[in-house]
Amino acid sequence: MSKFIDIHTGMKGIDKKRLTDVHKQDTSIESSEGVKFLHVWADPTSGKVFCLSEAPNKDAVLRVHKKSGHATDEIYEVPLEIE
Amino acid sequence: MSKFIDIHTGMKGIDKKRLTDVHKQDTSIESSEGVKFLHVWADPTSGKVFCLSEAPNKDAVLRVHKKSGHATDEIYEVPLEIE
Repeated sequence: MSKFIDIHTGMKGIDKKRLTDVHKQDTSIESSEGVKFLHVWADPTSGKVFCLSEAPNKDAVLRVHKKSGHATDEIYEVPLEIE
Repeated sequence: MSKFIDIHTGMKGIDKKRLTDVHKQDTSIESSEGVKFLHVWADPTSGKVFCLSEAPNKDAVLRVHKKSGHATDEIYEVPLEIE
């Protein structure tokens, strides 16, 4: 398992309720791909959403997002981190 | 205080030691701008580094990075988050 950050665009004006709804669409099916979403951050001004996940590989994360209706192709494996 | 994610590029091949050194350069001066770096993730393959911080505003974060020698102009305020 590795950690990944993926980035979505086009979410300008997103609010907490919408982010929660969108996130639930992902978490409700994440186990089908062995993915666990750990954290999500959103910027309503730029419309960017950042998802931190733990998964077997990039494609597993991208498949979850695609199945749940908000596909992205921007994802990075982040094996290094400092708390 | 708000939360921010800023993104650096050009760090291909970065390892844990280099990331730790770079991060220390930021944290050693963060208080001068009222910034607190909370977490850093790095992808040695693409060379992207993501910093999560808490700060009074975007410019304060960017000034810390500039002073410590690794300026970026890509930063997002992320007032929404889900753990």
